[in-house]
Amino acid sequence: MRSPNRGISKVRKAMESINHQYLLAHHPEGALQESNFTWQEAPVPKPAAGEVLVRVLYLSLDPANRGWINKGGSYRDPVLPGQVMAGFTIARVVESKFSGLAAGDIVECEAGWQDYAVLPGDKLHRLEGDAPLELWMNVLGLTGKTAYFGLLDIGKPQPGETVVVSGAAGATGSVAGQIAKIKGCRVVGIAGTDEKCEWLRELGFDAAINYKREELAQGLRAACPDGIDVYFDNVAGDTLQAALLQMRLHGRIVCCGAVSQYDKAERAPSPMGLPGLLIVRRLTMQGFIVMDHYDRRQEAERELLQWVREGHIQYRLDIVDGLKQAPRALIGVLYGDNTGKRMIRVDPNT
Amino acid sequence: MRSPNRGISKVRKAMESINHQYLLAHHPEGALQESNFTWQEAPVPKPAAGEVLVRVLYLSLDPANRGWINKGGSYRDPVLPGQVMAGFTIARVVESKFSGLAAGDIVECEAGWQDYAVLPGDKLHRLEGDAPLELWMNVLGLTGKTAYFGLLDIGKPQPGETVVVSGAAGATGSVAGQIAKIKGCRVVGIAGTDEKCEWLRELGFDAAINYKREELAQGLRAACPDGIDVYFDNVAGDTLQAALLQMRLHGRIVCCGAVSQYDKAERAPSPMGLPGLLIVRRLTMQGFIVMDHYDRRQEAERELLQWVREGHIQYRLDIVDGLKQAPRALIGVLYGDNTGKRMIRVDPNT
Repeated sequence: MRSPNRGISKVRKAMESINHQYLLAHHPEGALQESNFTWQEAPVPKPAAGEVLVRVLYLSLDPANRGWINKGGSYRDPVLPGQVMAGFTIARVVESKFSGLAAGDIVECEAGWQDYAVLPGDKLHRLEGDAPLELWMNVLGLTGKTAYFGLLDIGKPQPGETVVVSGAAGATGSVAGQIAKIKGCRVVGIAGTDEKCEWLRELGFDAAINYKREELAQGLRAACPDGIDVYFDNVAGDTLQAALLQMRLHGRIVCCGAVSQYDKAERAPSPMGLPGLLIVRRLTMQGFIVMDHYDRRQEAERELLQWVREGHIQYRLDIVDGLKQAPRALIGVLYGDNTGKRMIRVDPNT
Repeated sequence: MRSPNRGISKVRKAMESINHQYLLAHHPEGALQESNFTWQEAPVPKPAAGEVLVRVLYLSLDPANRGWINKGGSYRDPVLPGQVMAGFTIARVVESKFSGLAAGDIVECEAGWQDYAVLPGDKLHRLEGDAPLELWMNVLGLTGKTAYFGLLDIGKPQPGETVVVSGAAGATGSVAGQIAKIKGCRVVGIAGTDEKCEWLRELGFDAAINYKREELAQGLRAACPDGIDVYFDNVAGDTLQAALLQMRLHGRIVCCGAVSQYDKAERAPSPMGLPGLLIVRRLTMQGFIVMDHYDRRQEAERELLQWVREGHIQYRLDIVDGLKQAPRALIGVLYGDNTGKRMIRVDPNT
């Protein structure tokens, strides 16, 4: 992925550094604030037997991060006050005491919001091949694979069906919509700015609805006069409600995320009409987490990379420089500031 | 199924009769009343080419009937005031002008709440084999097949998993629970009387909860300490809410019915925590209608009959004599008066 020499010179430089970190200061009550995090400097840790020291290159910022810091946790144990904020990262191995990895290797890991981390070697996933590094945090990364497994395995779109994607200009939604196009579907995206909707049309979406400018239920009826076969839901709340009412017989709702709800102290009520609508229209609502499908991650990565190379999947990167920016950048993700995948370039030399 | 001679003698007798009918008087507002139906006498109709005159033997009473008479309809067009109340029936062909059927044939059809009906011949399904007639309205009928397809195709229970069934002493629930036992699951039933719970234990259910006597959430936690893998929901409302909170990772909720809701003017709110719980626990909620699976009805009937003959599926019949009783008997079904399958014996000679 990069030459060993370049890797080693970086290792030397890195070893001289201190480790900047964001700790969770306290669980948010309602809207996330920058003050929920504490910036600190710490010594670079040393790996023990079986462990690996990594230098973080990129930190992924994802709506799901917000759920991880709730008091009750989510699909994983919560981050507790005083702990380093958790996050998915791409990193370079600095020092390895794990037989399967060597200095200079590029890995995917959960190093969190810091410059360096020591992790058990078996928790690191070495990235192979010659794909650009950023792609591993994007189309080939968690968000792209979430779109892949969610749309194909849960949504099961058939050629000619109508697929609606919310959060459609986000890192997951934009890939989900493009995969649906590859599979021969009619694709409608929901996003929150005219610029995002314009981009969706450039990507080949058949229609795009700016839910902040037009009444969503009406927009969906106009864009999907025969109803929705697959609704890929990244946002929940009112958007899910509007889509649910427009679902067609035997439709599938892919419950991928609920970004409209993550940053609220009180969750919105569940959509009305459940389970009645599910029965009458024979609908399926299914939640999933991408890691459950990781036995097939290589298949997904191979196919996604091919689609990128053939031009069928395009992407936008929203790279923010400097770990220091992470709290503000995450808050932005929760409110749709980003178009495409937002990430922090943690190592300025990357 | 019965001897031609007996059939013909019945035909003669029947032809002398008048046709008693219940019409829908007006759509119910809230709780169903006997006064929602009008009893009348009409002449026995004559079949035209392609049609068949049938004498109704048994009329099925099902919670779903309540949905059919709502103003808005349900999964089918609503019955309108002045129309004969709709219902599934087993009937005997009296006179056939349809090439595929002859007088004396026993058929499954939707003759509705009346003694006689003329129906297009291709809407009748001739019952073959030597199974007792009542079984076709029960384990081999709509309710048994609903249990079969709902549990097996939607619930996909695996040996050792925990299956919870609500409305468990009903015609569908009792079969669903017994199929789950056949498939090697741990089965917990929810019902509304101690007698029903006792019957469920006799059927081999591992536990039965009387939701009117004990707090359901607590009962479910005690009966399913490791959580619920498959929840077969016949009732919706508070019961669905309690089960949802106790679902295990990757659990499946079979949305079969919502009997707690059918007779209310205002539907209960949707269960709390959707879609969040579906995502975090990777749950599936799926609605279905048994007719969608009718391409495989013979497979289901064959297997169900075998299970009955081997003693793996037991059933109770709740036969009410006389069409006149239909309104009161249906109201009872909505409030769980029945144990097992409730039906009306319309022809007293059956």
